Amino acid sequence: MEREDALKIVREQLTDHRYQHTLGVMETAIALAKQYGADEKKAELAAIFHDYAKFRPKDEMRNIIESQKFSQDLLHYNSELWHAPTGAYLVEKEAGLMDKEILDAIRYHTAGRPNMTLLEKIIYLADYIEPGRHFPGVDEVRDLAKQNLDTALIQAVKNTILFLMKKNQPVYPESFQTYNDLVKRQED
Amino acid sequence: MEREDALKIVREQLTDHRYQHTLGVMETAIALAKQYGADEKKAELAAIFHDYAKFRPKDEMRNIIESQKFSQDLLHYNSELWHAPTGAYLVEKEAGLMDKEILDAIRYHTAGRPNMTLLEKIIYLADYIEPGRHFPGVDEVRDLAKQNLDTALIQAVKNTILFLMKKNQPVYPESFQTYNDLVKRQED
Repeated sequence: MEREDALKIVREQLTDHRYQHTLGVMETAIALAKQYGADEKKAELAAIFHDYAKFRPKDEMRNIIESQKFSQDLLHYNSELWHAPTGAYLVEKEAGLMDKEILDAIRYHTAGRPNMTLLEKIIYLADYIEPGRHFPGVDEVRDLAKQNLDTALIQAVKNTILFLMKKNQPVYPESFQTYNDLVKRQED
Repeated sequence: MEREDALKIVREQLTDHRYQHTLGVMETAIALAKQYGADEKKAELAAIFHDYAKFRPKDEMRNIIESQKFSQDLLHYNSELWHAPTGAYLVEKEAGLMDKEILDAIRYHTAGRPNMTLLEKIIYLADYIEPGRHFPGVDEVRDLAKQNLDTALIQAVKNTILFLMKKNQPVYPESFQTYNDLVKRQED
Protein backbone atom coordinates (compact mmCIF):
# COMPACT_ATOMS: atom_id res chain seq x y z
CA MET A 1 0.00 0.00 0.00
CA GLU A 2 1.29 3.45 -0.93
CA ARG A 3 1.80 6.10 1.70
CA GLU A 4 -0.82 8.46 0.28
CA ASP A 5 -3.49 5.76 0.15
CA ALA A 6 -2.73 4.70 3.72
CA LEU A 7 -2.79 8.28 4.99
CA LYS A 8 -6.10 8.89 3.27
CA ILE A 9 -7.62 5.90 5.06
CA VAL A 10 -6.43 6.85 8.56
CA ARG A 11 -7.19 10.56 8.15
CA GLU A 12 -10.88 9.68 8.21
CA GLN A 13 -10.42 7.79 11.49
CA LEU A 14 -8.55 10.47 13.42
CA THR A 15 -8.87 13.99 14.77
CA ASP A 16 -6.57 16.59 13.21
CA HIS A 17 -4.41 16.54 16.33
CA ARG A 18 -4.05 12.76 16.24
CA TYR A 19 -3.39 12.84 12.50
CA GLN A 20 -0.52 15.28 13.04
CA HIS A 21 0.80 12.92 15.75
CA THR A 22 0.57 10.05 13.27
CA LEU A 23 2.65 11.97 10.72
CA GLY A 24 5.26 12.56 13.45
CA VAL A 25 5.32 8.86 14.32
CA MET A 26 5.69 8.02 10.63
CA GLU A 27 8.71 10.27 10.11
CA THR A 28 10.30 9.09 13.36
CA ALA A 29 9.66 5.41 12.62
CA ILE A 30 11.19 5.68 9.15
CA ALA A 31 14.27 7.40 10.59
CA LEU A 32 14.64 4.73 13.29
CA ALA A 33 14.16 1.96 10.71
CA LYS A 34 16.91 3.50 8.60
CA GLN A 35 19.20 3.84 11.63
CA TYR A 36 18.63 0.35 13.05
CA GLY A 37 18.22 -1.62 9.83
CA ALA A 38 14.50 -2.38 9.83
CA ASP A 39 12.21 -2.46 6.79
CA GLU A 40 11.43 1.22 6.19
CA LYS A 41 8.27 0.52 4.22
CA LYS A 42 6.85 -1.66 7.01
CA ALA A 43 7.80 0.95 9.58
CA GLU A 44 6.00 3.59 7.52
CA LEU A 45 2.77 1.58 7.24
CA ALA A 46 2.77 0.39 10.86
CA ALA A 47 3.24 3.99 12.01
CA ILE A 48 0.50 5.34 9.76
CA PHE A 49 -1.99 2.76 11.05
CA HIS A 50 -0.85 2.51 14.69
CA ASP A 51 -3.71 4.62 16.10
CA TYR A 52 -6.34 3.49 13.60
CA ALA A 53 -8.80 2.43 16.34
CA LYS A 54 -8.03 5.29 18.74
CA PHE A 55 -11.47 6.89 18.45
CA ARG A 56 -13.62 3.80 18.17
CA PRO A 57 -16.35 3.54 20.82
CA LYS A 58 -15.29 1.62 23.91
CA ASP A 59 -18.14 -0.84 23.41
CA GLU A 60 -16.93 -1.72 19.94
CA MET A 61 -13.39 -2.30 21.25
CA ARG A 62 -14.69 -4.35 24.16
CA ASN A 63 -16.72 -6.51 21.76
CA ILE A 64 -13.69 -7.14 19.58
CA ILE A 65 -11.52 -8.07 22.58
CA GLU A 66 -14.20 -10.52 23.73
CA SER A 67 -15.18 -12.00 20.36
CA GLN A 68 -11.62 -12.31 19.06
CA LYS A 69 -10.47 -13.87 22.35
CA PHE A 70 -7.73 -11.31 22.90
CA SER A 71 -6.33 -11.35 26.44
CA GLN A 72 -9.42 -10.75 28.57
CA ASP A 73 -7.11 -9.23 31.16
CA LEU A 74 -7.16 -6.09 28.97
CA LEU A 75 -10.71 -5.43 30.10
CA HIS A 76 -9.52 -5.07 33.70
CA TYR A 77 -6.95 -2.41 32.90
CA ASN A 78 -7.03 1.11 31.46
CA SER A 79 -9.12 1.28 28.28
CA GLU A 80 -6.32 3.37 26.74
CA LEU A 81 -4.68 0.01 26.04
CA TRP A 82 -7.55 -1.32 23.96
CA HIS A 83 -6.99 0.58 20.73
CA ALA A 84 -3.72 -1.24 20.01
CA PRO A 85 -4.95 -4.86 19.67
CA THR A 86 -8.33 -3.80 18.29
CA GLY A 87 -6.50 -1.52 15.86
CA ALA A 88 -4.48 -4.45 14.53
CA TYR A 89 -7.71 -6.38 14.05
CA LEU A 90 -9.55 -3.54 12.30
CA VAL A 91 -6.64 -2.56 10.07
CA GLU A 92 -6.59 -6.10 8.70
CA LYS A 93 -10.36 -6.33 8.40
CA GLU A 94 -11.18 -2.85 7.07
CA ALA A 95 -8.01 -1.70 5.34
CA GLY A 96 -6.95 -5.13 4.12
CA LEU A 97 -3.43 -4.94 5.49
CA MET A 98 -2.32 -8.55 5.94
CA ASP A 99 1.36 -8.29 6.91
CA LYS A 100 1.75 -9.99 10.30
CA GLU A 101 4.85 -8.00 11.26
CA ILE A 102 3.06 -4.72 10.64
CA LEU A 103 -0.08 -5.88 12.44
CA ASP A 104 1.96 -7.01 15.46
CA ALA A 105 3.73 -3.66 15.60
CA ILE A 106 0.29 -2.02 15.81
CA ARG A 107 -0.94 -4.63 18.30
CA TYR A 108 1.91 -4.14 20.78
CA HIS A 109 2.62 -0.43 20.40
CA THR A 110 1.06 0.58 23.73
CA ALA A 111 1.83 -2.22 26.23
CA GLY A 112 4.79 -3.82 24.51
CA ARG A 113 5.40 -7.53 25.09
CA PRO A 114 8.31 -9.78 25.98
CA ASN A 115 10.53 -10.65 23.03
CA MET A 116 9.56 -7.63 20.90
CA THR A 117 10.62 -7.58 17.26
CA LEU A 118 12.76 -4.77 15.88
CA LEU A 119 9.73 -3.29 14.11
CA GLU A 120 7.62 -3.45 17.28
CA LYS A 121 10.34 -1.64 19.23
CA ILE A 122 10.58 1.05 16.56
CA ILE A 123 6.84 1.76 16.53
CA TYR A 124 6.61 1.78 20.35
CA LEU A 125 9.50 4.21 20.55
CA ALA A 126 8.45 6.39 17.61
CA ASP A 127 5.04 6.80 19.23
CA TYR A 128 6.79 7.92 22.42
CA ILE A 129 9.35 10.36 20.99
CA GLU A 130 7.80 11.82 17.82
CA PRO A 131 8.41 15.59 17.65
CA GLY A 132 4.87 16.48 18.79
CA ARG A 133 5.38 14.79 22.18
CA HIS A 134 6.11 17.09 25.10
CA PHE A 135 6.34 15.61 28.60
CA PRO A 136 8.98 15.18 31.30
CA GLY A 137 11.65 12.72 30.28
CA VAL A 138 10.92 12.63 26.55
CA ASP A 139 14.12 14.47 25.58
CA GLU A 140 16.21 11.96 27.51
CA VAL A 141 14.59 9.12 25.55
CA ARG A 142 15.13 11.02 22.27
CA ASP A 143 18.82 11.29 23.09
CA LEU A 144 19.05 7.62 24.04
CA ALA A 145 17.33 6.63 20.78
CA LYS A 146 20.22 8.14 18.86
CA GLN A 147 22.62 5.73 20.58
CA ASN A 148 20.84 2.51 21.47
CA LEU A 149 17.34 1.36 20.62
CA ASP A 150 16.94 -0.98 23.62
CA THR A 151 18.27 1.50 26.15
CA ALA A 152 15.83 4.10 24.84
CA LEU A 153 12.98 1.61 24.87
CA ILE A 154 13.70 0.56 28.47
CA GLN A 155 13.61 4.20 29.52
CA ALA A 156 10.30 4.76 27.70
CA VAL A 157 8.72 1.65 29.26
CA LYS A 158 10.02 2.64 32.69
CA ASN A 159 8.68 6.18 32.37
CA THR A 160 5.28 4.82 31.41
CA ILE A 161 5.20 2.47 34.40
CA LEU A 162 6.46 5.17 36.80
CA PHE A 163 3.86 7.63 35.49
CA LEU A 164 1.09 5.19 36.37
CA MET A 165 2.59 4.21 39.73
CA LYS A 166 2.93 7.84 40.79
CA LYS A 167 -0.83 8.08 40.36
CA ASN A 168 -1.41 4.74 42.16
CA GLN A 169 -2.91 3.32 38.98
CA PRO A 170 -2.74 -0.37 38.08
CA VAL A 171 -0.12 -1.31 35.50
CA TYR A 172 -0.98 -3.82 32.77
CA PRO A 173 1.08 -6.94 33.56
CA GLU A 174 2.39 -7.18 30.00
CA SER A 175 4.06 -3.78 30.48
CA PHE A 176 5.88 -5.09 33.55
CA GLN A 177 6.84 -8.22 31.64
CA THR A 178 8.16 -6.07 28.81
CA TYR A 179 10.34 -4.15 31.26
CA ASN A 180 11.68 -7.35 32.86
CA ASP A 181 12.35 -8.94 29.50
CA LEU A 182 14.30 -5.93 28.22
CA VAL A 183 16.48 -5.45 31.31
CA LYS A 184 17.20 -9.17 31.58
CA ARG A 185 18.46 -9.18 27.99
CA GLN A 186 20.78 -6.28 28.75
CA GLU A 187 22.17 -8.20 31.74
CA ASP A 188 23.01 -11.24 29.62
CA MET B 1 6.38 -20.81 71.65
CA GLU B 2 7.56 -18.17 74.13
CA ARG B 3 9.38 -15.08 72.96
CA GLU B 4 12.62 -15.91 74.74
CA ASP B 5 12.76 -19.41 73.28
CA ALA B 6 12.09 -18.09 69.80
CA LEU B 7 14.72 -15.36 70.13
CA LYS B 8 17.25 -17.88 71.34
CA ILE B 9 16.67 -20.00 68.24
CA VAL B 10 17.01 -17.17 65.74
CA ARG B 11 19.95 -15.52 67.48
CA GLU B 12 22.08 -18.49 66.41
CA GLN B 13 21.03 -17.99 62.79
CA LEU B 14 21.75 -14.29 62.49
CA THR B 15 24.52 -11.74 62.67
CA ASP B 16 24.30 -9.23 65.54
CA HIS B 17 23.22 -6.55 63.11
CA ARG B 18 20.45 -8.70 61.69
CA TYR B 19 19.39 -9.78 65.18
CA GLN B 20 18.97 -6.14 66.20
CA HIS B 21 16.92 -5.62 63.04
CA THR B 22 14.78 -8.60 64.04
CA LEU B 23 14.10 -7.07 67.47
CA GLY B 24 13.04 -3.87 65.73
CA VAL B 25 10.69 -5.77 63.43
CA MET B 26 9.26 -7.60 66.45
CA GLU B 27 8.44 -4.40 68.35
CA THR B 28 7.03 -2.75 65.23
CA ALA B 29 4.95 -5.78 64.27
CA ILE B 30 3.44 -6.04 67.76
CA ALA B 31 2.56 -2.34 67.70
CA LEU B 32 0.96 -2.66 64.25
CA ALA B 33 -0.95 -5.78 65.33
CA LYS B 34 -2.29 -3.86 68.33
CA GLN B 35 -3.23 -0.89 66.14
CA TYR B 36 -4.88 -2.86 63.34
CA GLY B 37 -6.42 -5.70 65.34
CA ALA B 38 -4.21 -8.62 64.38
CA ASP B 39 -3.07 -11.44 66.67
CA GLU B 40 -0.15 -9.92 68.62
CA LYS B 41 1.37 -13.27 69.52
CA LYS B 42 1.42 -14.40 65.88
CA ALA B 43 2.86 -11.05 64.81
CA GLU B 44 5.59 -11.45 67.45
CA LEU B 45 6.58 -14.95 66.30
CA ALA B 46 6.38 -14.20 62.59
CA ALA B 47 8.60 -11.16 63.12
CA ILE B 48 11.14 -13.06 65.21
CA PHE B 49 11.46 -15.76 62.57
CA HIS B 50 11.05 -13.66 59.40
CA ASP B 51 14.79 -13.62 58.52
CA TYR B 52 15.54 -17.11 59.84
CA ALA B 53 17.09 -18.26 56.52
CA LYS B 54 18.81 -14.96 55.67
CA PHE B 55 22.33 -16.36 56.01
CA ARG B 56 21.83 -19.83 54.61
CA PRO B 57 24.08 -20.69 51.67
CA LYS B 58 22.55 -19.93 48.29
CA ASP B 59 22.92 -23.54 47.22
CA GLU B 60 20.88 -24.74 50.19
CA MET B 61 18.13 -22.23 49.40
CA ARG B 62 18.20 -23.16 45.70
CA ASN B 63 17.86 -26.84 46.62
CA ILE B 64 14.87 -26.14 48.84
CA ILE B 65 13.17 -24.05 46.14
CA GLU B 66 13.69 -26.88 43.66
CA SER B 67 12.87 -29.84 45.88
CA GLN B 68 9.85 -28.23 47.55
CA LYS B 69 8.55 -27.10 44.15
CA PHE B 70 8.29 -23.45 45.17
CA SER B 71 7.82 -21.08 42.24
CA GLN B 72 10.84 -21.87 40.05
CA ASP B 73 10.57 -18.31 38.76
CA LEU B 74 12.31 -17.28 42.00
CA LEU B 75 15.55 -18.74 40.66
CA HIS B 76 15.51 -16.26 37.79
CA TYR B 77 15.25 -13.22 40.05
CA ASN B 78 17.40 -11.67 42.77
CA SER B 79 18.51 -14.25 45.33
CA GLU B 80 17.60 -11.73 48.05
CA LEU B 81 14.07 -13.06 47.55
CA TRP B 82 14.95 -16.65 48.37
CA HIS B 83 15.26 -16.42 52.15
CA ALA B 84 11.54 -15.70 52.60
CA PRO B 85 10.01 -18.92 51.20
CA THR B 86 12.95 -21.07 52.30
CA GLY B 87 12.71 -19.45 55.73
CA ALA B 88 9.07 -20.49 56.06
CA TYR B 89 10.09 -24.02 55.13
CA LEU B 90 13.03 -24.19 57.55
CA VAL B 91 11.18 -22.58 60.46
CA GLU B 92 8.59 -25.33 60.22
CA LYS B 93 11.15 -28.09 59.75
CA GLU B 94 13.82 -27.01 62.21
CA ALA B 95 11.98 -24.91 64.80
CA GLY B 96 8.74 -26.87 64.64
CA LEU B 97 6.52 -23.87 64.11
CA MET B 98 3.39 -25.19 62.41
CA ASP B 99 1.04 -22.21 62.28
CA LYS B 100 0.18 -21.60 58.61
CA GLU B 101 -0.63 -17.92 59.12
CA ILE B 102 2.76 -17.29 60.71
CA LEU B 103 4.58 -19.34 58.09
CA ASP B 104 2.83 -17.45 55.26
CA ALA B 105 3.77 -14.13 56.83
CA ILE B 106 7.40 -15.28 56.72
CA ARG B 107 6.98 -16.70 53.21
CA TYR B 108 5.64 -13.48 51.68
CA HIS B 109 7.50 -10.84 53.68
CA THR B 110 9.85 -9.86 50.83
CA ALA B 111 7.86 -10.08 47.58
CA GLY B 112 4.34 -9.84 48.97
CA ARG B 113 1.56 -11.51 47.03
CA PRO B 114 -1.93 -10.65 45.81
CA ASN B 115 -4.61 -10.95 48.47
CA MET B 116 -2.26 -10.58 51.45
CA THR B 117 -3.60 -11.35 54.92
CA LEU B 118 -3.53 -8.75 57.68
CA LEU B 119 -0.63 -10.57 59.35
CA GLU B 120 1.34 -10.73 56.07
CA LYS B 121 0.87 -7.00 55.56
CA ILE B 122 2.04 -6.27 59.09
CA ILE B 123 5.24 -8.30 58.77
CA TYR B 124 6.04 -6.85 55.33
CA LEU B 125 5.56 -3.35 56.64
CA ALA B 126 7.29 -3.88 60.00
CA ASP B 127 10.32 -5.20 58.13
CA TYR B 128 10.30 -2.03 56.04
CA ILE B 129 9.81 0.60 58.76
CA GLU B 130 11.40 -0.82 61.94
CA PRO B 131 13.43 1.87 63.74
CA GLY B 132 16.78 0.56 62.47
CA ARG B 133 15.85 1.25 58.85
CA HIS B 134 17.31 4.38 57.29
CA PHE B 135 16.75 5.05 53.62
CA PRO B 136 14.97 7.64 51.45
CA GLY B 137 11.21 7.44 51.80
CA VAL B 138 11.07 5.36 55.00
CA ASP B 139 9.79 8.22 57.16
CA GLU B 140 6.92 8.83 54.76
CA VAL B 141 5.91 5.16 55.06
CA ARG B 142 6.24 5.36 58.88
CA ASP B 143 3.83 8.30 58.89
CA LEU B 144 1.39 6.53 56.56
CA ALA B 145 1.48 3.43 58.77
CA LYS B 146 0.04 5.48 61.60
CA GLN B 147 -3.01 6.26 59.50
CA ASN B 148 -3.72 3.44 57.06
CA LEU B 149 -2.04 0.06 56.73
CA ASP B 150 -2.82 -0.42 53.03
CA THR B 151 -1.73 3.07 52.01
CA ALA B 152 1.56 2.54 53.84
CA LEU B 153 2.00 -0.88 52.29
CA ILE B 154 1.36 0.43 48.76
CA GLN B 155 4.02 3.09 49.31
CA ALA B 156 6.51 0.50 50.59
CA VAL B 157 5.86 -1.85 47.66
CA LYS B 158 6.14 1.07 45.21
CA ASN B 159 9.40 2.25 46.74
CA THR B 160 10.83 -1.24 46.45
CA ILE B 161 9.84 -1.52 42.78
CA LEU B 162 11.10 1.99 41.97
CA PHE B 163 14.40 1.28 43.72
CA LEU B 164 14.96 -1.73 41.46
CA MET B 165 13.78 0.04 38.30
CA LYS B 166 16.11 2.97 38.90
CA LYS B 167 18.96 0.46 38.76
CA ASN B 168 17.46 -1.27 35.68
CA GLN B 169 17.09 -4.47 37.69
CA PRO B 170 14.36 -7.03 36.99
CA VAL B 171 11.40 -6.96 39.35
CA TYR B 172 9.92 -10.23 40.61
CA PRO B 173 6.47 -10.50 38.96
CA GLU B 174 4.78 -11.26 42.28
CA SER B 175 5.87 -7.83 43.52
CA PHE B 176 4.19 -6.18 40.55
CA GLN B 177 1.10 -8.30 41.13
CA THR B 178 1.09 -7.24 44.77
CA TYR B 179 1.17 -3.58 43.73
CA ASN B 180 -1.65 -4.05 41.20
CA ASP B 181 -3.74 -6.01 43.68
CA LEU B 182 -3.40 -3.35 46.41
CA VAL B 183 -4.18 -0.34 44.18
CA LYS B 184 -7.10 -2.08 42.53
CA ARG B 185 -8.61 -2.75 45.96
CA GLN B 186 -8.27 0.91 46.87
CA GLU B 187 -10.07 1.87 43.65
CA ASP B 188 -13.04 -0.37 44.45
